[in-house]
Amino acid sequence: MTGAAPVKPQTAPSASPASPATLDPVALAAELIRAPSVTPHAADALELVARWLKAGGYRVERLTFETGGVPIANLYARIGETGPNLCFAGHVDVVPEGDAAQWHHAPFAGTVENGVLHGRGAVDMKGAVAAFLSAALAFGRPAKGSLSFLITGDEEGPALDGTVKVVEWLKERGEVIDHCLLGEPTNPDALGDAFKVGRRGSLSGVLTVKGVQGHVAYPHLADNPIPRLLKLIGELTAAPLDHGSDFFPPSNLEVVSVDVGNPVFNLIPAQATARFNVRFNDHFSLATLKSEIIRRIDGAGLTYDLEFQTGASQSFLTAPGPFTELVAGAVEEVTGRRPVPSTSGGTSDARFIKDICPVVEFGLVGRTMHKVDEATPVADIQALTAIYGRIIIRYFATFA
Amino acid sequence: MTGAAPVKPQTAPSASPASPATLDPVALAAELIRAPSVTPHAADALELVARWLKAGGYRVERLTFETGGVPIANLYARIGETGPNLCFAGHVDVVPEGDAAQWHHAPFAGTVENGVLHGRGAVDMKGAVAAFLSAALAFGRPAKGSLSFLITGDEEGPALDGTVKVVEWLKERGEVIDHCLLGEPTNPDALGDAFKVGRRGSLSGVLTVKGVQGHVAYPHLADNPIPRLLKLIGELTAAPLDHGSDFFPPSNLEVVSVDVGNPVFNLIPAQATARFNVRFNDHFSLATLKSEIIRRIDGAGLTYDLEFQTGASQSFLTAPGPFTELVAGAVEEVTGRRPVPSTSGGTSDARFIKDICPVVEFGLVGRTMHKVDEATPVADIQALTAIYGRIIIRYFATFA
Repeated sequence: MTGAAPVKPQTAPSASPASPATLDPVALAAELIRAPSVTPHAADALELVARWLKAGGYRVERLTFETGGVPIANLYARIGETGPNLCFAGHVDVVPEGDAAQWHHAPFAGTVENGVLHGRGAVDMKGAVAAFLSAALAFGRPAKGSLSFLITGDEEGPALDGTVKVVEWLKERGEVIDHCLLGEPTNPDALGDAFKVGRRGSLSGVLTVKGVQGHVAYPHLADNPIPRLLKLIGELTAAPLDHGSDFFPPSNLEVVSVDVGNPVFNLIPAQATARFNVRFNDHFSLATLKSEIIRRIDGAGLTYDLEFQTGASQSFLTAPGPFTELVAGAVEEVTGRRPVPSTSGGTSDARFIKDICPVVEFGLVGRTMHKVDEATPVADIQALTAIYGRIIIRYFATFA
Repeated sequence: MTGAAPVKPQTAPSASPASPATLDPVALAAELIRAPSVTPHAADALELVARWLKAGGYRVERLTFETGGVPIANLYARIGETGPNLCFAGHVDVVPEGDAAQWHHAPFAGTVENGVLHGRGAVDMKGAVAAFLSAALAFGRPAKGSLSFLITGDEEGPALDGTVKVVEWLKERGEVIDHCLLGEPTNPDALGDAFKVGRRGSLSGVLTVKGVQGHVAYPHLADNPIPRLLKLIGELTAAPLDHGSDFFPPSNLEVVSVDVGNPVFNLIPAQATARFNVRFNDHFSLATLKSEIIRRIDGAGLTYDLEFQTGASQSFLTAPGPFTELVAGAVEEVTGRRPVPSTSGGTSDARFIKDICPVVEFGLVGRTMHKVDEATPVADIQALTAIYGRIIIRYFATFA
């Protein structure tokens, strides 16, 4: 399949309310953890979410895309017919468990012990999905406006057939989302630390210098590409790209690999390659950043090949306003601490959602994400559920 | 087997003179090429040399060493009982033929066509071995003094069980060689261009910088080793090591590889490695060169690991004098051109022989050595035989 057309769109309205038993966010999170969904095979976990939302009266659209060669399950669900539409976005796919023998609790058992929920995805981000589900199902159908869910099975992988495709599908359909809350882990140490109001952009490149191979005893007959590559890297990294902006840290270029692959000492190699990644702020667009990189390298006056990688993303910022204020206020109301608006860290699916509406991110504490023994205190899931509940109430009070 | 003790020393004196048919150096060279001897399996080619020398009245010692795990055939042969002893040194092992389909003549056929002898080893250095054999057998037994041969089967490989071991054996036995002529290809373009009166030393090292792996979006939580490695390389290569000396070109350091091996763009790597080789002249000993390298790297004030490789060699010089003069004079007498005394190029077994006697190198034109279609004009083998003959005559006239 190509393009944005879903393979099996299904509309399945449901009348029955969620049973009280399914509203416990910790039980929901544990059940999601027990549905293994190592990226990209997340259909089983997504099926649970669909079932619960249907039971809660949501219209559920199942959206399968497979431009990447594997069918990827996604879901868009909505309750309510009118605007404003507050969407909760997230993913149920998880990174692999790694060496399962190193875990102190089985990674897909969803064990609760001493007030801690253990398992892959507890933090990133089945815990947050469960918390929002619990809060939204408890809230029920808004008197005015809509609640919706955009849940993907392709966030941890190449992200070709996940949120990016659902957003295209929403646009084609004319489906309007007014504001979005993404449940990625945003707190470095404790719930209430920080929420994300933007993300830096990301651009990767491969820089190659060619030379002429030859014996090391006859350097005049060869042309070693290594000194020239190092000169180019020197030009590329000589000065900071910028010094940050109001909401962003400084843009940062990291050379992540330099490779020649010459196994012997008596040969001057024919080629040398460097790989780099830039995390950049709103001083740059992708186009101006590429220009700046080329300008710096050209300063050395040498011949080179430069290939920028696909999958680059712009930075974005959800400017301070009523929506960021209501999220911060809800966090403060429950935790007693005002979260810092942050744009640090990696990319997230917010880079796709920001094209259709303002998006803010708030979730659990990220410390154990992607690691062995991923876990979250049960109290954090409960507090997050309360925060999400306050956000829903404030949202309709503010915008409806 | 370990140490310098030969596995099968055999003394096989012979009375019968060489038959005239075996004295044609081109025929001898072709026969040696037809005895395949890709390093280290050169016993068959060495057997031919032994047979010819025995037929010429030489006492032949077969010396097999196998510290490297493979039995390596070597040979020391002498005619005459007294000094001075002029030794011809060389090897009958060859580098592999590579892609045999690319050769215009079968690499091990020893084909002569249009006045050119084709085949692996024609230049490096079965042609020279054949030329010296022919000249020495024609000269016969010196009236006063001795002629000897030191022929190895391990020059093109690791060189653990070749000349280095034969030299140890000679020393243990009290066998004196007064002067040595090594038959490596020394002429860049035409016979008579150059002879070697020394060689640069060679020292290789591996420089490693360790860091802390981490996500590229959180560089403050990681520690990228690449910028530090590049800084160290910069210090190492900032200035020339020296500007050459009377008989040597400047010492030269080449960074031959830089390797990280990080396949992804979102990870800061934990380690980066550079590999380098120095070809150095008589400004340095191995010890002072190592000190200079460490001094330069330490200048950066960073933590690093530096490992010098085994197999390093000192530079050496056979100072101008009667022996270098008689070799140059013999070359000029035959070719009409005075060869340039040179110390350029790679290492050779002269680095081992120089420990027991003055050594000078002169052989064929090296242009096709180690390449597809290795070949030499028949006329060059004949001229080289004449040169070697003149060297033998001049040697005993000068030193006996």
